[in-house]
Amino acid sequence: MPKYVDHDLQRQEVAEIVATLIARAGIESVTVRAVAQEAGVSTAVVSHYFASKRELLLHCYRATAARATARVQAAMAVDDSNLEAVLAALLPIRADARRDWLVWFAFWGMAIADPEFSKHQRMEVKKARKTFATWLGNNPRLPTRRKRHVERIARQLLTLLMGTAIEAAFDPADWPATRQRAQFASILSELTTPAPRRSR
Amino acid sequence: MPKYVDHDLQRQEVAEIVATLIARAGIESVTVRAVAQEAGVSTAVVSHYFASKRELLLHCYRATAARATARVQAAMAVDDSNLEAVLAALLPIRADARRDWLVWFAFWGMAIADPEFSKHQRMEVKKARKTFATWLGNNPRLPTRRKRHVERIARQLLTLLMGTAIEAAFDPADWPATRQRAQFASILSELTTPAPRRSR
Repeated sequence: MPKYVDHDLQRQEVAEIVATLIARAGIESVTVRAVAQEAGVSTAVVSHYFASKRELLLHCYRATAARATARVQAAMAVDDSNLEAVLAALLPIRADARRDWLVWFAFWGMAIADPEFSKHQRMEVKKARKTFATWLGNNPRLPTRRKRHVERIARQLLTLLMGTAIEAAFDPADWPATRQRAQFASILSELTTPAPRRSR
Repeated sequence: MPKYVDHDLQRQEVAEIVATLIARAGIESVTVRAVAQEAGVSTAVVSHYFASKRELLLHCYRATAARATARVQAAMAVDDSNLEAVLAALLPIRADARRDWLVWFAFWGMAIADPEFSKHQRMEVKKARKTFATWLGNNPRLPTRRKRHVERIARQLLTLLMGTAIEAAFDPADWPATRQRAQFASILSELTTPAPRRSR
């Protein structure tokens, strides 16, 4: 294998380890030393790529964002018009999605006073919103009159998704999968309903 | 002044200082020593009440939650039926509300791996949801047929509020007050629309 493939694998492994540490023991447990220990390598190997906890967290954040994008794309590949299923791919229903949300909470906590982290957060939100808007714009289930408002709808779906995920991640017993999905039911049914007729 | 009043004042002051530290330099900057320095007292005075960073943060979290409740109650006292204004009292529109959200992000980051913090988070969510449901149930602007669904509506309004606050806190330029408030417009107008056949 050429060397750069090795490096990519290591970086992916590091992201996995950081996410696992965060989910298990919180952001405080993420250190270059702890990551090296989990990976079974020397601290020098990890610190060659990641000089600090901050760099580890930023790398892990970006990896989880990419993974979330991949989950959405997989759901779209199954059925692009299934609005609910595509949104559900981002909710903390599956264990891997829940772990990604925990990473994001840890990241937000750090982003409060970190302009670069805040910038990444803004970029990811804008990217997600744009993906939603494009997807809604092309969606056969949406009547034409709704398509002028895809930007606003995408914005609202994303905020509802984030709020639901925060509540659900801390209270899974109160948020079974059906309830998480149901959050979107009224908006989606309103979205996809054909224009009202005067006589019913 | 009796002694317990003095203590209450000190605890309130400590909560203020912790919130200011979080907003200025993030959760990492919160230490017993830093709080003492800001308050102009010795570390011993602070550590008499708060043994650790964890206790400082929990105290600050509870104080901000109480303050948010007070903001909501003030908005209700002005006009209980103004749904949008009551919700807006919780959004990061005013500087004090934005700072409270930053405290909550920091708290969530810690709550990931802290069962007691998670429990407090669940309790606050349940309390907010209950306040919303009671308020909607008594609200003259809601038609009777909606009142059977106040639990579900309260749940959805709260998730939408949380999601909006997270996006807005990290991207105030993208979220002017009008846009934050507009998030609720479609749900609230749907809620308060009389049934197609008027019974008045």
